[in-house]
Amino acid sequence: MTIRVLVWNEGWHEQVDASVQAIYPDGIHGAIASGLTALLGDDVQVRTATLADPEHGLTEESLDATDVLLWWGHMKHADVTDEVVERVHQHVLGGMGLLVLHSGHYSKIFKALMGTTCGLSWRNEGEKEIVWTIDPTHPIAEGVEQPFVIEAQEMYGEHFDVPPPDELVFASWFAGGELFRSGMTFRRGRGKVFYFSPGDQEYPVYHHPQVHRVLANAVRWAEPVRGERVPREAPNQPRTWS
Amino acid sequence: MTIRVLVWNEGWHEQVDASVQAIYPDGIHGAIASGLTALLGDDVQVRTATLADPEHGLTEESLDATDVLLWWGHMKHADVTDEVVERVHQHVLGGMGLLVLHSGHYSKIFKALMGTTCGLSWRNEGEKEIVWTIDPTHPIAEGVEQPFVIEAQEMYGEHFDVPPPDELVFASWFAGGELFRSGMTFRRGRGKVFYFSPGDQEYPVYHHPQVHRVLANAVRWAEPVRGERVPREAPNQPRTWS
Amino acid sequence: MTIRVLVWNEGWHEQVDASVQAIYPDGIHGAIASGLTALLGDDVQVRTATLADPEHGLTEESLDATDVLLWWGHMKHADVTDEVVERVHQHVLGGMGLLVLHSGHYSKIFKALMGTTCGLSWRNEGEKEIVWTIDPTHPIAEGVEQPFVIEAQEMYGEHFDVPPPDELVFASWFAGGELFRSGMTFRRGRGKVFYFSPGDQEYPVYHHPQVHRVLANAVRWAEPVRGERVPREAPNQPRTWS
Amino acid sequence: MTIRVLVWNEGWHEQVDASVQAIYPDGIHGAIASGLTALLGDDVQVRTATLADPEHGLTEESLDATDVLLWWGHMKHADVTDEVVERVHQHVLGGMGLLVLHSGHYSKIFKALMGTTCGLSWRNEGEKEIVWTIDPTHPIAEGVEQPFVIEAQEMYGEHFDVPPPDELVFASWFAGGELFRSGMTFRRGRGKVFYFSPGDQEYPVYHHPQVHRVLANAVRWAEPVRGERVPREAPNQPRTWS
Repeated sequence: MTIRVLVWNEGWHEQVDASVQAIYPDGIHGAIASGLTALLGDDVQVRTATLADPEHGLTEESLDATDVLLWWGHMKHADVTDEVVERVHQHVLGGMGLLVLHSGHYSKIFKALMGTTCGLSWRNEGEKEIVWTIDPTHPIAEGVEQPFVIEAQEMYGEHFDVPPPDELVFASWFAGGELFRSGMTFRRGRGKVFYFSPGDQEYPVYHHPQVHRVLANAVRWAEPVRGERVPREAPNQPRTWS
Repeated sequence: MTIRVLVWNEGWHEQVDASVQAIYPDGIHGAIASGLTALLGDDVQVRTATLADPEHGLTEESLDATDVLLWWGHMKHADVTDEVVERVHQHVLGGMGLLVLHSGHYSKIFKALMGTTCGLSWRNEGEKEIVWTIDPTHPIAEGVEQPFVIEAQEMYGEHFDVPPPDELVFASWFAGGELFRSGMTFRRGRGKVFYFSPGDQEYPVYHHPQVHRVLANAVRWAEPVRGERVPREAPNQPRTWS
Repeated sequence: MTIRVLVWNEGWHEQVDASVQAIYPDGIHGAIASGLTALLGDDVQVRTATLADPEHGLTEESLDATDVLLWWGHMKHADVTDEVVERVHQHVLGGMGLLVLHSGHYSKIFKALMGTTCGLSWRNEGEKEIVWTIDPTHPIAEGVEQPFVIEAQEMYGEHFDVPPPDELVFASWFAGGELFRSGMTFRRGRGKVFYFSPGDQEYPVYHHPQVHRVLANAVRWAEPVRGERVPREAPNQPRTWS
Repeated sequence: MTIRVLVWNEGWHEQVDASVQAIYPDGIHGAIASGLTALLGDDVQVRTATLADPEHGLTEESLDATDVLLWWGHMKHADVTDEVVERVHQHVLGGMGLLVLHSGHYSKIFKALMGTTCGLSWRNEGEKEIVWTIDPTHPIAEGVEQPFVIEAQEMYGEHFDVPPPDELVFASWFAGGELFRSGMTFRRGRGKVFYFSPGDQEYPVYHHPQVHRVLANAVRWAEPVRGERVPREAPNQPRTWS
């Protein structure tokens, strides 16, 4: 069955930063969407949406038609309305997959799902990042080079204040001496969440073939295993079984 | 060093239900406090607070003086102000231990820390509950009988919609055919959280010696390992190490 | 790609117990193979092997042609040669999936992979077992009824001495008051291991449609993500990356 | 109660390598023992043993008198007798704490407890290692600097073929571009196991104050929670509870 993917991007840097426009003429969301389509072909149907769209493009109808949502945000986290965040949250708990990318670590939706500050250390000096696979059995690591190199990147460093992940898939080395758990999974309700840190508006990371491979694998992994989208409630359960 | 414990209880059933008053003449918080003091003696200093106290007894000053907070609530979750919940949340992320008890699964603070619905199945027919130790290496299980029996209890059943726990310490069997992960740990920020389901206002569970033992062990376990109480932020980190 | 499945059974009860012959005229392995083929069709190619086969049917050649191995044993654990156990172990570490069933908890291969005693409590009185899904996001739980009932079973109870699992998928309730972590995953090397406890030679558990569903899901889940079958070694790594 | 610690070292490099003798005139075991005593004082009673001792100093009597065993080996893994390894294994499953150090990753006892190859990448060029705390709530990280630097070390790199750990406490950065999960916990049976990679015979790592702090914390953490030392068996359990 075709996986219905929605790539969400706040889309602000693309409007105001010439350097970002040069790297991502079709937007960060466009680059990600292209990568997914190139690798997954007819197995996916990829749409995009941005902050500027009505209800940020995240209406009930839009989310109902989404199996896996990718989230990129940075400057405009605060401008995402609480109502939309709550709606996305309910869809994740009901089963929608969610891939949170790079500076999305500080998005409202990721903080709501984690329950922690999601803080980290950072430094933007174009350092080399080397991404190592920690879990070679994981489907998200399938076919990914061990390791792969991103020549210039923003540094994200530990301690990354998230709950202990269900699975640690990737970890990254940075030239300046830091390291970071760069690929982690978190099950929340019926939904699967994957956080992946490589990716920044100032570097062409979303054109990197290994990053495309990771995101394509993650889309397949996060696809809901059940069609229903009903977050768990607290039903009174009559005695039935014994 | 003495562990400073604060037992928080909404304290509503004790005001309106004669049956609860009969079981807990000093309140649920009073029974829990007595159990802790009896087992831990001078190693702890135990205070109590309730919803009716100014700011629910959970002022900045009160929380600063608390190493481990126990939380019991049921009917009045919605009456705990968002401001107080946010304050408690920050203290947990900064290191304060938190033990969430029974119907506290639906408290604002627990839902905020978990990021999930925290839903479950329930049935109140006074069924037998048998509590099994799943992790015999865990300090919270030290000295706890394998298993121990609670003759009459409310049933809580799976699926319990919380993230996969860091550690599954106890699981409970119910006469009607359900089971439940009844003792689980969750690290959040610098704080340690333990959820323990046995305990209800209609049964004398908080007078049970094995329940006292679990709570006393959990208080020791949840004591912060560091004195500072500063949730993680996102500092710019100058290149330092290499 | 077709998943190549090998169902291994010691095959001893089928030779000496009339009651087992009556329940499993084609052997336990035959019943399991039928269930897998019925549900997975052309997606799998299912073979069987037993202790009596040369090298127990587990030659290097046979294992090379196996993506997922299922293991049932009970009376004859000690008769499986150490050489074959070591061979199977290396294949699992190299990527072969392994499903260990019921009394296989005490097999040499499972103990070697776990590093623990794999002990548990048991009682064979034909009790009701109720199997609950603990992780509704897990592919092995997809389409499995919540809960499902096995009318008569041997009881397996905690503490089950295995390492904390990577994922707790199912847990079982028994009429006599015990519970058990009945479905757990363990990654070992490049291989995925799933232990599933329902199933005994004296009850028709391997004819149960829900058990078939679980095993079919588990076969899909345990399929290796990489073609190579080379257990990790300890290479000297020349400086390459920075 | 005093924690009874036994520091075990194969003690071979100290006999044949002048450079090692110069760094560790009292042996690697002597340096570790001194560090523990200096930090833990009367809370511990520290003994040492080496391969050359009768039964390697690991008799039943010696292990019975040990709460936490530290293990350092490198060239002589194969010379540790299988009988002694089995004896240590049973003590760990019965509750004895075990700290496995550096090249002990390839010891018979660690491989038996993990069930995997325990392979990794390595390079001995005296590179800088930077050790980062990943879990600031963990008692083993208490009081440890974030990060701490070891100026010259052997590199150990991923993939490290161990099961997913229960807790990832530390991870290390190496100048050459690799990283490594350098501090991990594993519960096995009733025993707690901690693997810590910093430490090599050619560098004065076991004189480093932060390494002393980690090992002292780990000794406290690994202390058995129960006095009995009986690995789990498989008892028939008469119906008792319901």
